[in-house]
Amino acid sequence: MKKTLNIAIIGMGFMGRAHSNGWSQLNKFFDTDFNICLKAVAGNSETRLKAFAEKWGYEEYTTDWRTLIDRDDIDVIDILTPTYLHKEMALAAMKAGKHVICEKPCALTWQDCREMAQMAKEMGVVTYLNHNYRRVPAVMLAKQMIEEGKLGTIYHYRGTYLQEWIMDEEFPVTWQLKKETAGGGPLYDLTSHNADLARYLVGEPVSVSAVLKTIVKERPEPGENSAVFSAGDTSSSTKKLPVTVDDAAFMILEFENGAIGNIDSSRFAAGRKNYNCFEIYGSKGALCFDLERMNELQYYDATVDADHQGYRTIMVTEGTHPYVGAWWPQGHIIGYEHTFVHAFKDFTDAISKNTEMIPNFEDGEKIIKILQAAQISSKEGRKVQLADMK
Amino acid sequence: MKKTLNIAIIGMGFMGRAHSNGWSQLNKFFDTDFNICLKAVAGNSETRLKAFAEKWGYEEYTTDWRTLIDRDDIDVIDILTPTYLHKEMALAAMKAGKHVICEKPCALTWQDCREMAQMAKEMGVVTYLNHNYRRVPAVMLAKQMIEEGKLGTIYHYRGTYLQEWIMDEEFPVTWQLKKETAGGGPLYDLTSHNADLARYLVGEPVSVSAVLKTIVKERPEPGENSAVFSAGDTSSSTKKLPVTVDDAAFMILEFENGAIGNIDSSRFAAGRKNYNCFEIYGSKGALCFDLERMNELQYYDATVDADHQGYRTIMVTEGTHPYVGAWWPQGHIIGYEHTFVHAFKDFTDAISKNTEMIPNFEDGEKIIKILQAAQISSKEGRKVQLADMK
Amino acid sequence: MKKTLNIAIIGMGFMGRAHSNGWSQLNKFFDTDFNICLKAVAGNSETRLKAFAEKWGYEEYTTDWRTLIDRDDIDVIDILTPTYLHKEMALAAMKAGKHVICEKPCALTWQDCREMAQMAKEMGVVTYLNHNYRRVPAVMLAKQMIEEGKLGTIYHYRGTYLQEWIMDEEFPVTWQLKKETAGGGPLYDLTSHNADLARYLVGEPVSVSAVLKTIVKERPEPGENSAVFSAGDTSSSTKKLPVTVDDAAFMILEFENGAIGNIDSSRFAAGRKNYNCFEIYGSKGALCFDLERMNELQYYDATVDADHQGYRTIMVTEGTHPYVGAWWPQGHIIGYEHTFVHAFKDFTDAISKNTEMIPNFEDGEKIIKILQAAQISSKEGRKVQLADMK
Amino acid sequence: MKKTLNIAIIGMGFMGRAHSNGWSQLNKFFDTDFNICLKAVAGNSETRLKAFAEKWGYEEYTTDWRTLIDRDDIDVIDILTPTYLHKEMALAAMKAGKHVICEKPCALTWQDCREMAQMAKEMGVVTYLNHNYRRVPAVMLAKQMIEEGKLGTIYHYRGTYLQEWIMDEEFPVTWQLKKETAGGGPLYDLTSHNADLARYLVGEPVSVSAVLKTIVKERPEPGENSAVFSAGDTSSSTKKLPVTVDDAAFMILEFENGAIGNIDSSRFAAGRKNYNCFEIYGSKGALCFDLERMNELQYYDATVDADHQGYRTIMVTEGTHPYVGAWWPQGHIIGYEHTFVHAFKDFTDAISKNTEMIPNFEDGEKIIKILQAAQISSKEGRKVQLADMK
Repeated sequence: MKKTLNIAIIGMGFMGRAHSNGWSQLNKFFDTDFNICLKAVAGNSETRLKAFAEKWGYEEYTTDWRTLIDRDDIDVIDILTPTYLHKEMALAAMKAGKHVICEKPCALTWQDCREMAQMAKEMGVVTYLNHNYRRVPAVMLAKQMIEEGKLGTIYHYRGTYLQEWIMDEEFPVTWQLKKETAGGGPLYDLTSHNADLARYLVGEPVSVSAVLKTIVKERPEPGENSAVFSAGDTSSSTKKLPVTVDDAAFMILEFENGAIGNIDSSRFAAGRKNYNCFEIYGSKGALCFDLERMNELQYYDATVDADHQGYRTIMVTEGTHPYVGAWWPQGHIIGYEHTFVHAFKDFTDAISKNTEMIPNFEDGEKIIKILQAAQISSKEGRKVQLADMK
Repeated sequence: MKKTLNIAIIGMGFMGRAHSNGWSQLNKFFDTDFNICLKAVAGNSETRLKAFAEKWGYEEYTTDWRTLIDRDDIDVIDILTPTYLHKEMALAAMKAGKHVICEKPCALTWQDCREMAQMAKEMGVVTYLNHNYRRVPAVMLAKQMIEEGKLGTIYHYRGTYLQEWIMDEEFPVTWQLKKETAGGGPLYDLTSHNADLARYLVGEPVSVSAVLKTIVKERPEPGENSAVFSAGDTSSSTKKLPVTVDDAAFMILEFENGAIGNIDSSRFAAGRKNYNCFEIYGSKGALCFDLERMNELQYYDATVDADHQGYRTIMVTEGTHPYVGAWWPQGHIIGYEHTFVHAFKDFTDAISKNTEMIPNFEDGEKIIKILQAAQISSKEGRKVQLADMK
Repeated sequence: MKKTLNIAIIGMGFMGRAHSNGWSQLNKFFDTDFNICLKAVAGNSETRLKAFAEKWGYEEYTTDWRTLIDRDDIDVIDILTPTYLHKEMALAAMKAGKHVICEKPCALTWQDCREMAQMAKEMGVVTYLNHNYRRVPAVMLAKQMIEEGKLGTIYHYRGTYLQEWIMDEEFPVTWQLKKETAGGGPLYDLTSHNADLARYLVGEPVSVSAVLKTIVKERPEPGENSAVFSAGDTSSSTKKLPVTVDDAAFMILEFENGAIGNIDSSRFAAGRKNYNCFEIYGSKGALCFDLERMNELQYYDATVDADHQGYRTIMVTEGTHPYVGAWWPQGHIIGYEHTFVHAFKDFTDAISKNTEMIPNFEDGEKIIKILQAAQISSKEGRKVQLADMK
Repeated sequence: MKKTLNIAIIGMGFMGRAHSNGWSQLNKFFDTDFNICLKAVAGNSETRLKAFAEKWGYEEYTTDWRTLIDRDDIDVIDILTPTYLHKEMALAAMKAGKHVICEKPCALTWQDCREMAQMAKEMGVVTYLNHNYRRVPAVMLAKQMIEEGKLGTIYHYRGTYLQEWIMDEEFPVTWQLKKETAGGGPLYDLTSHNADLARYLVGEPVSVSAVLKTIVKERPEPGENSAVFSAGDTSSSTKKLPVTVDDAAFMILEFENGAIGNIDSSRFAAGRKNYNCFEIYGSKGALCFDLERMNELQYYDATVDADHQGYRTIMVTEGTHPYVGAWWPQGHIIGYEHTFVHAFKDFTDAISKNTEMIPNFEDGEKIIKILQAAQISSKEGRKVQLADMK
């Protein structure tokens, strides 16, 4: 008889739906060691909480997230709030012995992340920082191929993450556009993913040269219904507020292993809806990925004879590909939200087997350090050595 | 307070999972007029039924599908069995006043389909034939665009559906490879989709010229675990059985509205995992679709000035695109199984509003007539007028 | 010291330029056994001939092509006229002992082609029918790969050739739109290429099932300046003439070796400028080609392990690829007209070494037989066996 | 009667062929105001010069380029030598009143370029720096579209130029790999093109942040036959020489008009044969280009309604597209070498009309300044303002 794992989430926006779906799909497609019980959801609006809990099958809801921490019958706290709240919530949850999942970016500063990582270590709980794109099957396949040596020595990483959803100058100053709540703009929101993938696939960077740019410097005060990827209700206000984060971030990275590369991100790239791409070049081959075609991985095998070489499109939908066997037959593609299910599979395994889950708050510390190095580099017009940030 | 709609499914293979998932996701992403209750699942193996029911939350299971028909507390019978069983099950269910969903292809012969369609009419129940690809958002968008006149007069339809999963000559003679259980090979399995989409998007065909081909004429007897897209257990038998269906089907169609086109299918197309594509050419533009990139629609607008014309890739992931608003923000793609949720949304709406759902058994009749015309055409080496089939 | 090969061309339109360019580029990029002398050009308009001869360096010009035949100082007659003129010109030239190049399609009927082929044999001259796409490096590479067994047993050929240049109903009835001058519409103009490539790459067809269609049945009388891919001067006439050829041709082919496939063509495919594509599926792999990206060949190697399989894009621009070494370094693409240079390289080699050049008039006979079989099949609504055409 | 323009070229390698072809094709496809006479070619090897002159129709050849300068019967000096020789040759030619074409990169230092630009101004001659990719029809179309305002305000430029031809560590230290002869590695060879296109399409950069990297620090001494894109004869020597240029260059640019972007280049990008790509994002749309598919331009029109937006592939092969009318009908693509013909068309027009040709040595100065700023930035680990370089 399986034990039950009791889950509570904090937050019920876009991520609230994605995580709830992840939890409810988990045991339908994967074999885990637990029954999953959606115990409670915490949020701001009682009305919306009630509807949300009903829809997704949460037993309870609350407007006071702290009450969740104190309860013995909750095993996992899943934090889906704006960035500036992560640290406080995660620390409280871990201190109470909960396993913790936290949305990215990890926290406002790398020092905050370090506190979180230290608490995790101290309390011996499993933590997971939800850079979910690691668990796209194509990305996991890329990782496998690199570990098998299929790329040889890695020379270059070229990453980008482009969106367009705030190109309208009337898009308001939501929490994502304020430094005190978000830490940064696309730098924190998007490049945090690039940095995670670069570290995962290539290795640790040692230096950062960056230029950040805020394109629209003032925007309307947000209305009540503002949310990610939508402009919200701006009708009530003509007041303008300053945008205190970047709109675009361009960065050059040098890696410990000698590789060199760049990553850039922007929310002003017309036509790029969720364009998260990387290219990795090595002595024996190359790999390319594009999130908008996330079931595919481009692979160039430089060891093939010259006449028959070429970038090939691997449909990462075979039963033997990472995670894919749990879903559908070959050629039947999966979507964005499946990455959350994959992460929860590995997270529950880590709990069950008492192993470490990655990425976690230590990864968060390293990622945020890269992002803050970029902020310093951009401000001071110089290359920043990551080793100097301590 | 919403009414409850009680669902029973018959079958628990690949389609059993896809339908169960469709039902369980329905109210999490769409607003329907019903609570959905997964009442019962019928199948052959008690052991597997038990596990299946538990995983997907069916209240009961049975090895005798007829018991489901007799019950008053079941509203919908969802038939996921091999083709040759559809007619009997659907007739029984409709006769008992159930709404019926039936997997494609509809039945072995168009006469069988007609019986099914007549019963549906007589009993006034809602029926749905699951050609689910109509409800890919990109396909639905194509339909909208055609109806808005964006293609003008349609000249051509070019469709194909290619797979590779039985290229191995040791793949056994599962029910899909016998005429008495499947009706046809890729002709029935794949071209039925092409024919459905051609009719949906272009209009009714009037003539069929076809050549069918069986490439591997004998194969091993199937083992117990044989299933779609996997070779099953062939170890126990070296006995060979004849393959009595086509392995590939090539067809030319003339349409009522003057368009001309072709559709072909094969299970011997190396590298094509689930390659269901169409191109539609009209006087004002063209549209192309590829199921392996199902979140995209190619559109050529011939009314743009000559210097700036070109096929454009519409990412069909905007909130205003069909069905998409229920899922994720732009650029966050969905997968194969989402089409089932879309279909169930429309199906439950049809029940609630007492309207017709399409495609249904009447469509099934027309589709199977095209497929049987192809069999005649191929056998007799002549073009077959559909009007002559009665 | 090299011998000189004296060339005369008949015709100076689109093909006149393409062939003249081919001849003038030949010895700059390839080593041939001859000096090439552009001796004379024949055409209708003295004014245009003069300008043409000057531009391309022809020593002489004439409005009477027959005078070229009689001269001893001409070695090659290169025929670039409308189809209905090919036979007479080619026969006369061969009879006079000239080597002959002839534009495709070969002639109006397969019987005409046979006469041409017989004369070639009788006179021992080298003939070349300019299906130039055989000599696209990517196509030649495909041929090599098939011969090396990289595709194993070939199951399917899917070919298409789509254009859009007469979609405007005001495009006039040029010679291409009359059966007596062109033999057929896209069937003769475009599908002749498909048929040539199918025969070259797969083998001889044995049966043809076809449906042809004329979409615009009447068009304006052509003005004086009408030419391929342009509507010409229609201002002077409101008179309508019947279109006596097809506008679209759809065909199913069965091959001697058991393969089955289809080819279709149309001049009513919006957005397809010169879309000549094929897909070939075999037991060990597959190949795809698209003329609009003629420097690329798609290759699927089915013998690669399942996890790393995928269609790869071979950039056919390596020095070791067919013909490519003569041009530019890798990645520097070539264009449409280069195929003519390749053909002339092989043609002059055939003269020098006294070997056969392919495709030639025998190929023309086989190709035109397929096209005429399609006309019969379409008219009579039945499959036509090529063996019955004699 | 047209005047004759007498051309002399210095150099007969890869570029010697490309320029000679450009000159010999010019009047066959374009109407210029001159007869073109290939007067002379200068180079090192008498034997190779003789063959080269014969093949391409040069009247004379010489091993002393200075003799060309002194002659009155030469109008244009076309310089195709290694970079370090450009300045001396160009200055001498201009001083003698010749119009000058010079291969890129312009010279070793921006001060050298300035001298060249000043001499051009002083002597009133027409000069052209052969960044030929400006005259790819798709790039010229991009320029037109930007000037028409189709992109609105430009936010970002992302450029890259990747090749793989020296990944083999046994590739020798040809002149391209020595700072004193080449100025830089891919920085000078490839990024010079990126910088030219960025300036042409977006505007002048104001700052450069760069990291350069030499991957293989020692290589064999070159053999006699070493050339671009081929390893040459290394058999005679096992001696290693230091590589004194970069193997990869990553750069972030800020532009005068507020745009921000990056450009990078490498000769260690497996599978990238000649991968010169850019993406330009603006407030009203975006454009993308890839040299390996140089007949295409990707265009995103952000003003289209949200449901029908998407990147479109413009086949830049219409008669109304820049330069294309001179070549072939729509869909018949052109190749790499055609860009030289386009440049020579514009160059001869500039001579005839006594106007300026671009890019010229002033552009060279600005481009080389960017590249040298990158060298400083990389060395000193800081952002360099271009205004400070004087």
